[in-house]
Amino acid sequence: MFTYRLTLRMHHTDAAGILYFANQFRIAHEAFESALSSHGIELYRIIAAADFALVIVHAEADYKAPLRIGDEIVVEVSADRIGDSSFTIGYRFARPTGETVGTASTVHVAIDKASWTKRGLPGEVRTAITKLKKP
Amino acid sequence: MFTYRLTLRMHHTDAAGILYFANQFRIAHEAFESALSSHGIELYRIIAAADFALVIVHAEADYKAPLRIGDEIVVEVSADRIGDSSFTIGYRFARPTGETVGTASTVHVAIDKASWTKRGLPGEVRTAITKLKKP
Amino acid sequence: MFTYRLTLRMHHTDAAGILYFANQFRIAHEAFESALSSHGIELYRIIAAADFALVIVHAEADYKAPLRIGDEIVVEVSADRIGDSSFTIGYRFARPTGETVGTASTVHVAIDKASWTKRGLPGEVRTAITKLKKP
Amino acid sequence: MFTYRLTLRMHHTDAAGILYFANQFRIAHEAFESALSSHGIELYRIIAAADFALVIVHAEADYKAPLRIGDEIVVEVSADRIGDSSFTIGYRFARPTGETVGTASTVHVAIDKASWTKRGLPGEVRTAITKLKKP
Repeated sequence: MFTYRLTLRMHHTDAAGILYFANQFRIAHEAFESALSSHGIELYRIIAAADFALVIVHAEADYKAPLRIGDEIVVEVSADRIGDSSFTIGYRFARPTGETVGTASTVHVAIDKASWTKRGLPGEVRTAITKLKKP
Repeated sequence: MFTYRLTLRMHHTDAAGILYFANQFRIAHEAFESALSSHGIELYRIIAAADFALVIVHAEADYKAPLRIGDEIVVEVSADRIGDSSFTIGYRFARPTGETVGTASTVHVAIDKASWTKRGLPGEVRTAITKLKKP
Repeated sequence: MFTYRLTLRMHHTDAAGILYFANQFRIAHEAFESALSSHGIELYRIIAAADFALVIVHAEADYKAPLRIGDEIVVEVSADRIGDSSFTIGYRFARPTGETVGTASTVHVAIDKASWTKRGLPGEVRTAITKLKKP
Repeated sequence: MFTYRLTLRMHHTDAAGILYFANQFRIAHEAFESALSSHGIELYRIIAAADFALVIVHAEADYKAPLRIGDEIVVEVSADRIGDSSFTIGYRFARPTGETVGTASTVHVAIDKASWTKRGLPGEVRTAITKLKKP
């Protein structure tokens, strides 16, 4: 499975001295984009020129440990569900030791840019997301 | 009920031309802080000098409409649950016309800063959060 | 002169307990957009549908005092220079008492979206920016 | 010289479809932190437990090309000046081909946390920053 590694930097933290909760979502999506890149797919570059978009309709996260500046994080990214017009990506955040420090999921829907209405998943999106399925 | 008003600015958006999903959480927490300020409570300034902290252990959001630069947003903030050591804040994002464009919730737990373990809600936090309960 | 008021929130800060330096730029641009809004001009909404864009080619800031969560900030925005194809916006960040806590400036250039090359300032941009000139 | 590599992700961009200008500063500081990490120094983790802090008193940047989602960026980080109580870090942003797409600099001052006044650079900071000097 693809794993994304990063070290927490100043801009991830807030005055409580730990990862600002909304930034875990930012990191999650960054990991999702990196997972696709690792398969040679720059999905959002494709979308910029396409007549469809992918929008997030739901996101959630759990936080299990305080993450501080300098902490190394490993993010596992997996396609947990692929439907007709939407898919769900799951994320596990762990320390290099394996300890789970958080989880997240995001639900993405394909829409037509002109009408901003739901449409079927374009073939190239389905192909890309399928590469992120757990074996 | 307290409502927080803002206009979407460039930094809220991404290359898809709409609100970046993680920024809805940033706006939610900003609205929560503003709700407390409206009651004369600068909670996180109190916490900076206290021996306890509030950490978010769960967050989730739904997105119901594309929000674009220049859009005016009204955020309703309410305390949906107040427990022994935690509380849940709910958020409704709407256009000035009343149309719901998103919702969110965050679960906050009181912890002891020294041991980073759960503790009862400090009295001043309970008092502050109670002010955000729906009538 | 237009002034933009805000209270520093958790997401503006970092683990040093003060405003993260890059966020002063984010606040500056937000104040610039608000200044234009105060004149009824949603400039970046106009640009989204136009064949030109405004890009920042230079930005700088000075930081004169530590700004903490809950601090109220007043931002003065002014058009300091308006040229053929570019303009410079100046920012003064102050406490409500008047104490200057920071300054910034940004240089914006009009470009043609198709060729991404410099062009003359569109009339509506010149009109909008002129409204921000100091008397 | 240390170089930091990253790929631009959705959260770096704004509705203009390019890197949001303030995020170039965020990337710069991330590159600075990574440069120190590459020498085994987690500077801001050291500072969290120390009686001194480093604050930025000046920052500036130039932007020479539009940077889009999926673009690969190489950031060169160098200590351009080391004084008694402050130092200046310089940044060059380039494409993998070598084309310069931006530059930046940040001026950092050592302060005493208790009094928030300027002090001499602590020895460990001087040693760390010296490692970033150009040969």
